[in-house]
Amino acid sequence: MSPRLRHLTTLEHLPRETIERLLDRAMAMRDACAHGTRKIDLLAGRTVLNLFFEPSTRTRTSFELAARRLGADVVNFDIGFSSANKGEELYDTLHTLEAMHLDAIIVRHKVSGTPDELVRHAMSGVSVINAGDGNRAHPTQGLLDALTIRQHRPDFENLSVAICGDVKHSRVARSDVHALSALGVRDIRLCGPASLMPAAEEFPQCRLIEDFDQAIEGVDAVIMLRLQKERMAQTDLPDEAAYFRQYGLDTARLARARKGCLVMHPGPINRGIEIASDVADGAQSRILEQVGNGVFVRMAVLGELLAR
Amino acid sequence: MSPRLRHLTTLEHLPRETIERLLDRAMAMRDACAHGTRKIDLLAGRTVLNLFFEPSTRTRTSFELAARRLGADVVNFDIGFSSANKGEELYDTLHTLEAMHLDAIIVRHKVSGTPDELVRHAMSGVSVINAGDGNRAHPTQGLLDALTIRQHRPDFENLSVAICGDVKHSRVARSDVHALSALGVRDIRLCGPASLMPAAEEFPQCRLIEDFDQAIEGVDAVIMLRLQKERMAQTDLPDEAAYFRQYGLDTARLARARKGCLVMHPGPINRGIEIASDVADGAQSRILEQVGNGVFVRMAVLGELLAR
Amino acid sequence: MSPRLRHLTTLEHLPRETIERLLDRAMAMRDACAHGTRKIDLLAGRTVLNLFFEPSTRTRTSFELAARRLGADVVNFDIGFSSANKGEELYDTLHTLEAMHLDAIIVRHKVSGTPDELVRHAMSGVSVINAGDGNRAHPTQGLLDALTIRQHRPDFENLSVAICGDVKHSRVARSDVHALSALGVRDIRLCGPASLMPAAEEFPQCRLIEDFDQAIEGVDAVIMLRLQKERMAQTDLPDEAAYFRQYGLDTARLARARKGCLVMHPGPINRGIEIASDVADGAQSRILEQVGNGVFVRMAVLGELLAR
Repeated sequence: MSPRLRHLTTLEHLPRETIERLLDRAMAMRDACAHGTRKIDLLAGRTVLNLFFEPSTRTRTSFELAARRLGADVVNFDIGFSSANKGEELYDTLHTLEAMHLDAIIVRHKVSGTPDELVRHAMSGVSVINAGDGNRAHPTQGLLDALTIRQHRPDFENLSVAICGDVKHSRVARSDVHALSALGVRDIRLCGPASLMPAAEEFPQCRLIEDFDQAIEGVDAVIMLRLQKERMAQTDLPDEAAYFRQYGLDTARLARARKGCLVMHPGPINRGIEIASDVADGAQSRILEQVGNGVFVRMAVLGELLAR
Repeated sequence: MSPRLRHLTTLEHLPRETIERLLDRAMAMRDACAHGTRKIDLLAGRTVLNLFFEPSTRTRTSFELAARRLGADVVNFDIGFSSANKGEELYDTLHTLEAMHLDAIIVRHKVSGTPDELVRHAMSGVSVINAGDGNRAHPTQGLLDALTIRQHRPDFENLSVAICGDVKHSRVARSDVHALSALGVRDIRLCGPASLMPAAEEFPQCRLIEDFDQAIEGVDAVIMLRLQKERMAQTDLPDEAAYFRQYGLDTARLARARKGCLVMHPGPINRGIEIASDVADGAQSRILEQVGNGVFVRMAVLGELLAR
Repeated sequence: MSPRLRHLTTLEHLPRETIERLLDRAMAMRDACAHGTRKIDLLAGRTVLNLFFEPSTRTRTSFELAARRLGADVVNFDIGFSSANKGEELYDTLHTLEAMHLDAIIVRHKVSGTPDELVRHAMSGVSVINAGDGNRAHPTQGLLDALTIRQHRPDFENLSVAICGDVKHSRVARSDVHALSALGVRDIRLCGPASLMPAAEEFPQCRLIEDFDQAIEGVDAVIMLRLQKERMAQTDLPDEAAYFRQYGLDTARLARARKGCLVMHPGPINRGIEIASDVADGAQSRILEQVGNGVFVRMAVLGELLAR
């Protein structure tokens, strides 16, 4: 059996067995909750702290709900988002929080690698969970996306998945690729405007395809990424309408995918920019299932890291 | 027996029986708390989310305390107050929250009708509680005001009540009228400067009286409304001192009411603008009782909506 | 036995016995937590409210953790820091909160004496705990500093302690002096630039020494104060480097103290301004122990004030 995790900062290099165990745990959490047991006392008496250097109400709330459903206490440490919070100052904050005897710190930071820096500098038994760092990783999102796909298309070896949008700056895309590759998906296609595409060397296991019509051809799942509006200027595209024409997911384009192709998005969605409203709300959309799975996956991760 | 409520967005058209049941429940909550039982596990394992698009520390805290005393978990979803948060974006937020398996969403929004929009768009079993929408309704305030009056003057059929101030823009006034009318009060007088008075057609069951000395004559309870300072400019009155002379509640004016007239205000009060300090702090003031009843009424509403 | 406290606004004039009881309670809390009992249900069903008019994430979090580990509910009342919040408005806020049946209000305010004002105006059985008021007092910091010293140097009568920095504006320094004097320390030295030194009359039990090399000579503990950067202009010193040369704690200066001298700081530290990094992180540093003791001391205070 793969060793129990103490931290979760990235899915990269995690063995398939570990990822599958986390997904199985998430399913067990879902089943427990479905049977009316809203509260599981796995983490009674443990304290989890949200340390968000970037605002994110949705992810923070998802972690908060996950921790509380396991009986843990949750404290939100409200960092001023403007302050630098790096280097010594960041480690002093870490050590201060460790000295207060917390069990886990859930961190989001705009600088890639910050959660690993925290792990390296941690002096106590505190667990660090990455809730998104720069462009690098968002491991619980990768897990929840993998879980959502597994519920509908468990045959990972024979799946084709397209990830479309600003792949270059997307920690979601990276964690999705890590999770899906580890689980055996061999056909992962990354798609977006040239200026928002990553270097091919970074993703040797993926195909980079600039044309979305081509990228979506016959896929079993398509993961649309949120376009940060300030990135628009970096593309060759004149405006959002042009972006939507080339990289938006509408019914016509979805028809090129395999029948029943799963439509996914980490949220919040930009309707009419990267996804058409009727597709986002349509029968193939798994977007809200992703949100629900997010809570179960975070319960699973907290359980893996913190349960005695 | 009137059917159990699933949502509470307004008191309008609620049957008397339902309102009385909620007040009775609030009294039962008060009694339970008075006997030292600070915590009642009616809602153990349930999760309630505060979704406030307008800041309101007092009302939010009152709901939070009410939910916790019933054993529920409370999550504050900190929406940026500046963003539009309407239409599709609002519904996407709603659906995201529903997907996280919440039991109730307590919403405050500056646009009238938003809570009903949420009810219409809700896809799951989540309950929506209105904590104030635009000028339209603030049902828990209406209930707590009715409860406060009932504790002192239970003979609603023979009561006279004056509501004074910016009635036109007041959701408190509207919910008070709905509650008191349903409970049998036949003499409700609305009073304020002409520019801040509602259309008479909106309140066929009330008398609109511009002169406060006349409106307060012989009443059993007077509910003073908070004057938003930016409304001052809309009146014919030159300044706050002039407002206070015509529409402020001082000892002399209170003497025109029935002996022992209840003095009420939803808070926070503007001393010297709509109410004199000695009246606000005087023996007839029920303002702090209103605050205490607010917690019990919110416990009652949460219990009605969420208890299995 | 000294009477049980109902409020804690300052350590000034508290009998030695009371302070020792609080430190003993804090040790008992530490021992209980060390034995794996993360949660003690001493305050189950009680509600504690954080009322911070000055932002302070660290202190607020420490109180929040302390209250939760005792089983209490914690509500953060988010006051806008910009608003005046004084006089009538402050008391109306207090009375509103009291009406909601809270057990304790933890208050931080920039105006010295505000917590005592709240005690004087309180109408119910609510306990007030000062989390720092102006330059005047920060009693839980005084207690945690005393506890940290006692763990290493329990022989208070024979101790020498130096407090260095902006003593004039420091509520930490004042509460430290109150605690240490009450516990029997006879040699307390206050040190800092002339413009940041208090009037000698205010501290008749201390020695005021402007030269840090002289002040630190042979002491058993040195408490460094955080320099607010805006105070720099009030000193005769041209810049932070000059401040550090004269009032910073580095290895050379620490060598003048007694062997094994405890290095303390209320945090957050300004590295290279009042303390050298190698000293802050060195073997003699007790800074993180202080943070850990902070939680235990706050548990002790909450237990003293609120346990039935």
